[in-house]
Amino acid sequence: MKIAFLGLGVMGFPMAGHLAAHGHEICVYNRTAAKSSAWAKAHRGVAVASPAKAVVGAALVFSCLGDDPDVEAVLGDAAPAVARGAIIVDHTTASPALARRLAARFGASGIGFVDAPVSGGQAGAETGKLSVMCGGEAANVERARTAMEAYAARIVHIGPSGHGQLCKAVNQLCIAGILQGLAEGVHFAGASGLDIDRVFEAISGGAARSWQMDNRMKTMAEGRFDFGFAVDWMRKDLRIALEEARSNGSQLPVAALVDQFYADVQARGGGRFDTSSLVMRLKKRC
Amino acid sequence: MKIAFLGLGVMGFPMAGHLAAHGHEICVYNRTAAKSSAWAKAHRGVAVASPAKAVVGAALVFSCLGDDPDVEAVLGDAAPAVARGAIIVDHTTASPALARRLAARFGASGIGFVDAPVSGGQAGAETGKLSVMCGGEAANVERARTAMEAYAARIVHIGPSGHGQLCKAVNQLCIAGILQGLAEGVHFAGASGLDIDRVFEAISGGAARSWQMDNRMKTMAEGRFDFGFAVDWMRKDLRIALEEARSNGSQLPVAALVDQFYADVQARGGGRFDTSSLVMRLKKRC
Repeated sequence: MKIAFLGLGVMGFPMAGHLAAHGHEICVYNRTAAKSSAWAKAHRGVAVASPAKAVVGAALVFSCLGDDPDVEAVLGDAAPAVARGAIIVDHTTASPALARRLAARFGASGIGFVDAPVSGGQAGAETGKLSVMCGGEAANVERARTAMEAYAARIVHIGPSGHGQLCKAVNQLCIAGILQGLAEGVHFAGASGLDIDRVFEAISGGAARSWQMDNRMKTMAEGRFDFGFAVDWMRKDLRIALEEARSNGSQLPVAALVDQFYADVQARGGGRFDTSSLVMRLKKRC
Repeated sequence: MKIAFLGLGVMGFPMAGHLAAHGHEICVYNRTAAKSSAWAKAHRGVAVASPAKAVVGAALVFSCLGDDPDVEAVLGDAAPAVARGAIIVDHTTASPALARRLAARFGASGIGFVDAPVSGGQAGAETGKLSVMCGGEAANVERARTAMEAYAARIVHIGPSGHGQLCKAVNQLCIAGILQGLAEGVHFAGASGLDIDRVFEAISGGAARSWQMDNRMKTMAEGRFDFGFAVDWMRKDLRIALEEARSNGSQLPVAALVDQFYADVQARGGGRFDTSSLVMRLKKRC
């Protein structure tokens, strides 16, 4: 099957690679051409200079971009060249409003659109174990499922257009609370002179357990914040959730506060640190 | 070995039962005598009318009470009757300051004192799978270890007196963040019209995973808050952490906020609801 893949960042590059390894004919586009050339060389695929060229004749179009304006620009350029009957699957974490708008726009041209943000991070993309949360028509999700299985361990149809993005927002809201609680715990432990290894041993099997505790408690105590998903990206995701909350009437007090704490981390020059860097602003001073 | 057990609440009752099942000779005291009589009948132990009577001749004294004043009153009554060379292990979640004070006071009389709060809840007490976090002299922890193994899956010596309580505070700080993040996620999902089962399926394997998500996400969505550990008790634990933070100079912004949210749950009559009831105050209204 001919597949187009638009966006070869830290996520898209290995995801497109898994598709190629599963024998699909892949045509890639990336804004920085050096990356798409490198990808094409590594995977015997074809790199082209525009989204429109990439999607010609593709039955499936995947995109994995940065934010709403990137998705609008890249899919806007591709739109006239997408074949009637094709399915576009957008893996970008973007707004539910954009997903609904694009689904309507492409739907009017007989093109399916699925909002399909992922979780699992760079490691999940590289090992092919991502979770994909899909919004859109069930039939469109099913038509893309086999291809997505090249890089996904879970593919869940959450609901209609926008529901993939809304599910991802739930994921990020949960993580915001977990990370700030963990940061306060690690900070308090340090201020109390506790041995973090013994604390971890005592509490990591119980009701305080989290993936973040298992993987980040000790590195937070060490002040290491080089584990991928960056504060700058987390702020984008929290912005999406907080904006959506304005329209659906929900209250997100701690998410709003943690978003401000991340703004503080950015102001201290930590925008590229990973999200566990919340602890750095709690360090005892003077 | 003769063991005294002081306090037969939802935790102490089954813990003392496990000790009896392991063949120890148990003498119990409880403020409400009906409970200690019931315990003695069920476990062929001896129930007495005062802490002092319970501890006579005991090599180990366990207590599992409510708050600092309970510990001071019960152990204060017991003190004159505790044998030199005995070890007192206090399983109450109480303040680190009290733990240090009692360790000094009993130490001066040749009696060991270990602050040893537990996690695992009522279920952990009943199945004998608690985690015990111990503060005090290592030798005293070791002398009590075999007995505690009757009801504990993990027994960790965290550090000197007070460190057991400080470790428990870290546990509760982590839980406070996790639960509020999860509450906001569940609330946002509801306001967005998402199917919570599908959301759980999509995100429960990844970086947002927590014990609380595995066990409480769906029940929070259903508005069921009858799972044990109550808001009233959580506020006590957060008070301990927040008071300690005043002296060790740490900053706990989300814990302080979540404590206020729990005050709101109490004001709505939810003090006996379990800690996942944070979500109830986020329900969309008018």
